[in-house]
Formats: sequence, structure tokens, C-alpha cells
Amino acid sequence: MLSPGEEENHSEIQESNNDEHQSLAITNYTGEARDDLSASINRFVETLNYFNLRNLGYPSNQELKYDGLGALLNYHINNAGDPFKGSSFGLNSSEFEVCVLDWFAKLWDIHKGHYWGYVTTGGTEGNLHGILIGREQLPDGILYTSQDSHYSIFKIARMYRMQCVKVATLISGQIDCNHLKALLLAHRNKPAIINLNIGTTMKGGVDDLDLVIQTLEECGFTSDRFYIHCDAALFGVMLPFLKRAPKITFQKSIGSVTISGHKFLGCPIPCGVVITRLKYINNALSKDVEIIGSRDATITGSRCGHTPIFLWYRLKSKGLKGLKKDVEKCIMNASYLHGRLRGAGIGAMLNEFSNIVVFERPQLNDDNDDFTRRWSLACQGKIAHVVVMQHVTTKMLDSFVSEFLQKRFQAQCIADHVGSSNCSCSMHDGFLH
Amino acid sequence: MLSPGEEENHSEIQESNNDEHQSLAITNYTGEARDDLSASINRFVETLNYFNLRNLGYPSNQELKYDGLGALLNYHINNAGDPFKGSSFGLNSSEFEVCVLDWFAKLWDIHKGHYWGYVTTGGTEGNLHGILIGREQLPDGILYTSQDSHYSIFKIARMYRMQCVKVATLISGQIDCNHLKALLLAHRNKPAIINLNIGTTMKGGVDDLDLVIQTLEECGFTSDRFYIHCDAALFGVMLPFLKRAPKITFQKSIGSVTISGHKFLGCPIPCGVVITRLKYINNALSKDVEIIGSRDATITGSRCGHTPIFLWYRLKSKGLKGLKKDVEKCIMNASYLHGRLRGAGIGAMLNEFSNIVVFERPQLNDDNDDFTRRWSLACQGKIAHVVVMQHVTTKMLDSFVSEFLQKRFQAQCIADHVGSSNCSCSMHDGFLH
Repeated sequence: MLSPGEEENHSEIQESNNDEHQSLAITNYTGEARDDLSASINRFVETLNYFNLRNLGYPSNQELKYDGLGALLNYHINNAGDPFKGSSFGLNSSEFEVCVLDWFAKLWDIHKGHYWGYVTTGGTEGNLHGILIGREQLPDGILYTSQDSHYSIFKIARMYRMQCVKVATLISGQIDCNHLKALLLAHRNKPAIINLNIGTTMKGGVDDLDLVIQTLEECGFTSDRFYIHCDAALFGVMLPFLKRAPKITFQKSIGSVTISGHKFLGCPIPCGVVITRLKYINNALSKDVEIIGSRDATITGSRCGHTPIFLWYRLKSKGLKGLKKDVEKCIMNASYLHGRLRGAGIGAMLNEFSNIVVFERPQLNDDNDDFTRRWSLACQGKIAHVVVMQHVTTKMLDSFVSEFLQKRFQAQCIADHVGSSNCSCSMHDGFLH
Repeated sequence: MLSPGEEENHSEIQESNNDEHQSLAITNYTGEARDDLSASINRFVETLNYFNLRNLGYPSNQELKYDGLGALLNYHINNAGDPFKGSSFGLNSSEFEVCVLDWFAKLWDIHKGHYWGYVTTGGTEGNLHGILIGREQLPDGILYTSQDSHYSIFKIARMYRMQCVKVATLISGQIDCNHLKALLLAHRNKPAIINLNIGTTMKGGVDDLDLVIQTLEECGFTSDRFYIHCDAALFGVMLPFLKRAPKITFQKSIGSVTISGHKFLGCPIPCGVVITRLKYINNALSKDVEIIGSRDATITGSRCGHTPIFLWYRLKSKGLKGLKKDVEKCIMNASYLHGRLRGAGIGAMLNEFSNIVVFERPQLNDDNDDFTRRWSLACQGKIAHVVVMQHVTTKMLDSFVSEFLQKRFQAQCIADHVGSSNCSCSMHDGFLH
């Protein structure tokens, strides 16, 4: 489809400062370009459709219908600067952005005059921002995060030159507060910056915010000596719609929350939202930048003006009722998959409030990597998972289970990862099914 | 247009786990949503068109025609991981990305097997990446950058906990190598990480790469004790098409180059390209990430799959000839504006190889801020600038000059910023015009 070999020869650029351009391959190419390009794009869309039929392993909602907004692609829209201050670049969508931010501020119980935030380029930027705020508040703070945290957290600790302490997890994926306690006591002379996973990447374990705060207090950490950042990439928008789910709120002692916009809400372009307390931004992190007629307190500076519009569009067109329906559908279908796998004698785990079904990694046949790729499965060690998003139907899940069973001879032992009661290997309960 | 006040009441979400939804304002809203949304979007597009008529102050090419690619907005495309390694997420555009990267690698003379890079979220991420590589190579290195550098550089130094030394500039905006020399000698015990501006943000001054390398050598810095990152946001794509322009190339002792994709090339979404030497990535920065079936050596992790397609589309549809024509048009129109301003007795400066025209900041009337905003002018201290991009016509420039002259009573002295020979104030040569 794409053939870099057909590329023009750059070394000729500087010599071609006259009509010699005519001799470059690119000259002919230019004349025919448009047709070729459309054909390549069309073939690419076919590829996307092919992969989408079996797109199970990642938390991206592919139930998207944004082509009606195609006219916006004819403008570069840029929200550089502070969404609440405007900027001197006229083509911005700050008004949409603030509307989206207000929605999340309400979701997490923080008043308009007390919060600050922005639409990011994704979950990683949200983590970059939240943890930076924590570090600027507590410059010699130690970063605590569980071993099941997203890979970005460890990268960020390195980027920011922060001491990072890895905390053990329970089988569910949740942070082990007994271990956290021991670690806090061992480092009680330094403040604590804590990254909490509101849904771990692999297992969807939700760290217990209340227990973590209680643990900090028991270890003698007063609220001016800790900072909690919540990485709520996928579950941040789901939990509020689930009865009895743990509640993320700024009424508790947290410093920042971030979600990914392309996960539960669905967006063609990776994006996210970070919300924090305004006082942290006013105190330290922001800087007036004359050239953009605004102030900068973001990681990336120039920021996409399209994603706030897509997020606004989704929130407005779905409404709370639509979002709740989506959450219930995903949770129900995840439960359906879990039941089918367990029924078929495959070890599998599904946390409460989660749409992430964990099971043994397909590994018995020669072509398993092909199987894994074809279903876009995410794997780690001996386990794999399916994230049941809005585009995943029970029909897709049936096909998946059926194909998986055909490929598989016997249950693997994954008790170490999911607990023996969830395991189906011969040593545990595999033969009972 | 957007009315956050009409938002649904989130506090009712958890209580509304039944048919009480019917009582939420959002329920009614949902029924009517689609029509409302389209109307808002249409009004927003009108606003964009309004601002675009006078969009002069920022280096974003607004000559865009991408609505034909609107179908791609129905997919979340994600290039998480290493573009050269693929990933287990099927809906990626890595093939387009590698094609774009190869184009830039050729532009900057580095062979396919020797380079690494990726499509970023913009110039700031390119700087974040380049400077991080420098720091990982030379952990106790000092970051040197001129006072005219983009605001992201100073932010990055703070994020990365690097000592940052600010170097003076010449009137042109270029780094002052005499000052650099004095600073290098004063800190000769520590390695040097140098950020070079291949086009400063405000004046378009191009730091002299050859002279900087010569200065390093004269100060006794061998190539294993310095690292040069080139921030070529706007000019990186323009200079190769200009005769006698300074040449950025990996044949010289540089470590990384970055450009912004939404500047000269034009892209609806902020993006960029960073290219570095593969050895730096293999040595230190990359990390295998099992869950994405790839390795991660990027800043942001999940990455936009659309921007590589837009960049590919632009490079292929323009061809070298089309790009060269664009460069020449921008340079010629910048020269036209410079001539018109000087002819009208307004102090103005235009560097060689630059499309950024610097002049006195409009400031004489009460409504000047309105004037500045209406023309999206970027201002700093006593100066302002126009960046003559592809969408800027001589007609727009004529309107601008004519309106500017009406607003203005007398020339301001800006000799300190642009040199006395470029100044038109009464003390210098204002009355001669």
C-alpha cells in the first residue's frame, strides 16, 4: 500500500532549485497523487474494518460516528494556553473545552471556582500532569504506586527524577495496603506522592481510596505531607454509574484525577481529561506566556482543539442516561464472557465493577501469536484479557470463545495470578467443568 | 452557544439507578440532542471562518482540505508503542507513520537502519523527547538554550530537574556564541546539552549550528561530552527548499531534530516529528511493554493514528515541488509585508530565510487589544509579529497594513529589539519615510 521506496530523493532538493524538478520522480507522482491517495485510504479503512470485527483486547470504545464532523478537519484548531483564560490564537475551542471540564468537575464534586484542568492528549499526559503537581507540592516526596500500575507511571518517575517505590498488589490487582503501610513506615521521613489505579490496566482492580487514606493517617502522614493522584483512565467515567461502586471525589483528600477520553467515552483521537485543585496551579505550576496571550500550566503547550469538541459531542449526545446504559451493557457482556469461559473450563476472573475479563493466555498452538494478534488481545505473563467495550457484542464474544476452545487442549494453571478459586487447571478445578 | 448551566446534575447520577432518570433535565435534552449539536457545530465553523480571515500571528498553515478523510473519524486509531515494531492493537497506522519518518530521515541525511523517531503530539513533545535523550546520555549535563527559545524549553528543564543556563541572543534572535563560549568555559566540568532554535518563535532567528559546534570544540568539549537537540518547529521543513540556507543534517554532530506537523505542513490536529539516532534509543530509553506487544520509547504512550495519515497525505499530495512552491510563496509574501510596513514608516524586521515579520506592537488606541485579537497577533514586549503562512494572501496583508496605519499615530522606538537600522521611530529613521 505504502511504498517508501517510491519516495523522492531528498538529496536533490537543494540542487533542484530550478526546473530540474521536472526530472524528479515526485513530479510525475504529483500529477497523479490524489487518486492514488484516496485508494490507499480506502484500503486502509478496509483494514480497520477487518480488525474491528475482532477488536477485544484494548479499552477503546469503537462505537464512533463522528464523520458528520468532517468539516472541522479543514481547520487547525489549537487550544494552547489556559482554557479558562483564552488565548490570542483565534481558532480555539476553549468554550467546548471548559464545558467538558465543568462536566467532570461536577462528576468529581469540585466547585467551578476551586478546580483547574484541561483536555490532554491521553491518559499518560494526565498522569504526567498529576504527578508533576504532586512533586511540585512535595519536592522531596517519594512516589508510591502498585506493581500493577500502567507503564507510564514508572516512565514518569524516571523522567521526573523521583524516587519510586513499587507496592505489591492483591490477586484482584488492587494495591496491598499492608505492604503500603510497611513501606510508608520505612520512609516516614519523606512526604508521599501516591498514584492510585482506579482500574488497573490488566485486571481492572480498583485501589481502595478510603483504605489508602486511612493507611496514610495511621502512619502519621498529615494531609500536608501526602498527595494522591488518581489514574482513572477507563473506570473514571464508569464507576459513577454503578451502584455501590467506590466513589472518587474531591471531597476526599485527593489532588488530581485523570481519565482517558478515547476509552469509555470513545474518541477517534487519543485524549483525556485531568482535573486538579486550582490552588496548586496558582501556587506553582503556571507561567504567563506573553506570546500566546495566556498562561501555560500544561505539559504539551499547543493542544488539540478537536478532541474537546468530540468529547462535548459525546457527552451531549449520549446524556447521562445513555452513558449509564453503555456502562450496564459493558458490565453485563463482560459477565457473559466470564460465564462462558468458566463454563468451558477456562480459568478466568472478573472483578466487581469491571468490564475486564482476565483468562489464561492462549499459548498451545504454533499459530497462537496469530490468534492473539487477530483478536488484538493484550497479554502479560501467563494471562490475557478482553475489555468488553461498547462495540463488543455477545456474537463477537461467542465467536471468540468458540475459536479459543478449538485452539486449546488443556487449562493452564494461572492460580498465582487470579487465585486458585478462579483457576481451571487440572490441579485446581479444571476437570469439574 | 454552549451553556454549561444547562448541564445535568451529576449528584443525582447514583440515585438515578432506575426510572427516576426521567426526571433529570438530561432526559429531555437527550431527545433533542442531535439537532442542537449540529447547530452549535455549524455556528462554531462560522466563528472559525471569521477568525481565519485575519489569522496572521501564528505559524499554523490553514490551507487545509482534509474533509475527504472524514470517514477516518469513525475509528479510534492508536499507534501506541514503537512504530517500527508494530503492536498488538490492530487499529494502528504505523505503516503511514514509518513512511513519514523515512521522509524526514532522508531530509536530514540519516540512514534507515541508523535512526529512530515517531510522530508526536506537537513541538513540545518533540522537545520533551530530544532533551530527555540528551539528559539520559549525559545525566549531569547542563541544558543551554537561548533566551529567545520557545517557552516549552524552560518548562522542560524544570520538569526534568535539569540545570538550565540561558544564553543571550543577537538582535536577529540567534544565539550569541560569544556568550555561549563564556558560559561553557565557566561550566566546563559538566557536559553540555544544547537546545538550538532553528527559527526562534518570535523573530525566526536561526541559531548557527556550525558556529555552535565550533564553539563547543574551542571550549574543549569532545563529542561525547555534548548533545545537540534542534528545535526546528517551523523552519525545519522550509530551509531545505531555500538556496544558501543553513543545513540541518545528521552528518553533523547533532542528536535529535524535531518539527511541528501543524505548522508549515499543516494539519488539523497539533502534531510533530522527532528524529534521533537509533543507538540512543536502544541504549537507554526504550522499555519492552508486554501489554501492548511492543516497546515504548515515547513520551505520551498512546498516540494519535490520524496525524501520521494527515502528514503522509500532505507530503504525498504536495510532493517536493509543491512544498518548494509553498516555501517560496510564504517568503515572498513576508518580504512584501516587510516592504509595505517599512514603506509606511513602521519599524520592521525580517530575517533571511524567514517568513516571520517583526514590527512594533500596536498599542496606541484604546481598542488595540481588540485589534491584536482580531488579527490573532502574537506580541512580546514592544514587538509583535506576523507569520506569513500559506493561507495568507497579499490582499489580507494589504487590509492589515491599512487598518494598522489607521490605528497608529507615530512610530514606537523598537531599536533595542530589532536594531536601529530597522527602526522607524523619530529618533532613528521614522521621519525619512
